[in-house]
Amino acid sequence: MASEQPLVAVTCTAPVNIAVIKYWGKRDEELILPINSSLSVTLHQDQLKTTTTAALSRDFTEDRIWLNGREEDVGQPRLQACLQEIRRLAREQRSPGSEDQPPLRLSGKVHVASVNNFPTAAGLASSAAGYACLVYALARVYGVESDLSEVARRGSGSACRSLHGGFVEWQMGQRADGKDSVARQVAPESHWPELRVLVLVVSAERKPTGSTAGMRTSMETSALLKFRAEAVVPVHMAEMTRCVKERDFQGFGQLTMKDSNQLHATCLDTFPPICYLNDTSRRIMQLVHRFNAHHGHTKVAYTFDAGPNAVIFTLDDTVAEFVAAVRHCFPPESNGDEFLKGLPLRPAPLSDELKALLGMDPTPGSIKYIIATQVGPGPQIVDDPQAHLLGPDGLPKPAA
Amino acid sequence: MASEQPLVAVTCTAPVNIAVIKYWGKRDEELILPINSSLSVTLHQDQLKTTTTAALSRDFTEDRIWLNGREEDVGQPRLQACLQEIRRLAREQRSPGSEDQPPLRLSGKVHVASVNNFPTAAGLASSAAGYACLVYALARVYGVESDLSEVARRGSGSACRSLHGGFVEWQMGQRADGKDSVARQVAPESHWPELRVLVLVVSAERKPTGSTAGMRTSMETSALLKFRAEAVVPVHMAEMTRCVKERDFQGFGQLTMKDSNQLHATCLDTFPPICYLNDTSRRIMQLVHRFNAHHGHTKVAYTFDAGPNAVIFTLDDTVAEFVAAVRHCFPPESNGDEFLKGLPLRPAPLSDELKALLGMDPTPGSIKYIIATQVGPGPQIVDDPQAHLLGPDGLPKPAA
Repeated sequence: MASEQPLVAVTCTAPVNIAVIKYWGKRDEELILPINSSLSVTLHQDQLKTTTTAALSRDFTEDRIWLNGREEDVGQPRLQACLQEIRRLAREQRSPGSEDQPPLRLSGKVHVASVNNFPTAAGLASSAAGYACLVYALARVYGVESDLSEVARRGSGSACRSLHGGFVEWQMGQRADGKDSVARQVAPESHWPELRVLVLVVSAERKPTGSTAGMRTSMETSALLKFRAEAVVPVHMAEMTRCVKERDFQGFGQLTMKDSNQLHATCLDTFPPICYLNDTSRRIMQLVHRFNAHHGHTKVAYTFDAGPNAVIFTLDDTVAEFVAAVRHCFPPESNGDEFLKGLPLRPAPLSDELKALLGMDPTPGSIKYIIATQVGPGPQIVDDPQAHLLGPDGLPKPAA
Repeated sequence: MASEQPLVAVTCTAPVNIAVIKYWGKRDEELILPINSSLSVTLHQDQLKTTTTAALSRDFTEDRIWLNGREEDVGQPRLQACLQEIRRLAREQRSPGSEDQPPLRLSGKVHVASVNNFPTAAGLASSAAGYACLVYALARVYGVESDLSEVARRGSGSACRSLHGGFVEWQMGQRADGKDSVARQVAPESHWPELRVLVLVVSAERKPTGSTAGMRTSMETSALLKFRAEAVVPVHMAEMTRCVKERDFQGFGQLTMKDSNQLHATCLDTFPPICYLNDTSRRIMQLVHRFNAHHGHTKVAYTFDAGPNAVIFTLDDTVAEFVAAVRHCFPPESNGDEFLKGLPLRPAPLSDELKALLGMDPTPGSIKYIIATQVGPGPQIVDDPQAHLLGPDGLPKPAA
């Protein structure tokens, strides 16, 4: 491939985030403006991340995108919204009255390749990390320096929260144009080093309702959702911010569970109802409440998104005992060695008293595996040119 | 047993009722006053009923009660509340200034025996029928003629709705003494002869949270429950009354499902959360929505109380096809012959199109059996003295 100009490529990584105050319902479907603010914890990229390479070249004849090695339709509306928004910001940044030849970044086409380091089949919401990474990489390759909340949000609402590390709030904003609907860091990833996160990947027989369609139906039919957004979430946001700032795990954990339960309550109040929690999800909830009852206070908390997987928050002094309790109630079916992934944990014994209190019939195989992780930083630029997912020809490198 | 005075005995029957606008939450725990009005359908006693005999005799030395053949503690507070209230009403009814010897009914002790014609293990809320029948029988044997709502309510809130046949509302009332918290018939049992009811008895592995404790926790912790009671239920009550009066099945069915889902949403919003619906309950909900989608309108509706059993409402022209759909998705495990109890139904074929649309993997045995029934009358007096559950000695007759 003969090229007059070299290919310009940037590779970035971005994290998954888990909301502890949930986003559900849009006040503007196109701009993706939410009916309430939300607050999330950014997970560490050592365990869960998206990697994206964006490349520009005058030789490219069209925009193209590959996700996990497979080419996807670049014309899908949300992808287009992000791309157009980045290009608009790039144009705005040119010095006014400049009469130079438009630089490569304003005239060339873009190629994008993106991969996740976790299986899509895990049912983890990968769109937030995916769009955050896409927008971050595009901004770098196009030289855009402004706040990217607005752009990431157009891809997937919660993606704007993956633009920061640590603890992040997405302020709902009031303006019709969404300029004030932005993500801000509440506390950095170093703020609460004892915090641990476990993703319990649950076997699910059915594909749940997608969150975009689900939110729309909830907005149209659930009276409880409107009440939650207006009367409850503002209180939850203030209280959660305090809990994070003061590293108050009791408060943090209880509010995380209450907010998750209320989100799923509004899903059930939707018509036809939306049920993301299955019997395994509910057994995990019961396990957490019994574990906390045994200890006399909230040492572990759950939260659930649009699927049956649980995300567990706890502290480093409790995580091993809780994993032992999970193993007791949900024994691995055949993958005992690979049941626990991510951060290494020292096995902990489970007291007979706690075993008796849990009082649950073991249901082997209903949790597929656990990913142990912690709070992590926001998107990163990968300096090593070897890390690019696109080769000098602008096409995805063969998987190693 | 030598007796100077004969034993006076009355035997009554009373029905189960199923709320279509749900009661959840008390504003007064002792008087059992609800935070919202509710509306129910009285089920026919041919399929589901309680039978109770109340007997008075000067020979009785203490109050005694037998439930399903087993003597129970007569001192339990709710039973005592009913008994004392009936005796108070009986005293009030005596002509003022009467100087007669107090009649038997004011001085004697009472024996009560009560049986259900349906297995307790079915998980059907039997306390409503049980307390309605108790209070009705006591009122007859004590000669009390006033409104019994208040008395039945003291046993179990929803029992007051079992004092009437057809369609019944329990008006929440406003007074602190509960005098205006009464049950009233909205329409008689003859009003909507096409209406059919199916009780789908679901296998449950765990005993759910009792409704008294559950309501208390919900009152203390769920913001959504208060909003529902104040802002949603008044609208639901007015709309449901209209649907019943106009025999509008579409409206009736949709509102029945929405109100049930919202009740369970407030349970999930309770902390710790209360989950009465299990995976089978949710599969039944999905089956109903798909069945309706196939027909293009609401032909079948579900409602759930404090457990996983579904109660289905439909019309006589649809009931056989829906039972065939249930049998398809939840095949009987070993009791094919006894899977369908109650009203006889002509087997109906299931179209391949509907089978394909249901698209559910059959889960054999997750529905234990179905009871087919219809709307029925309120409590009845049984004239046949052979029907008394207590013998001339005031003790339960040996089961035939």
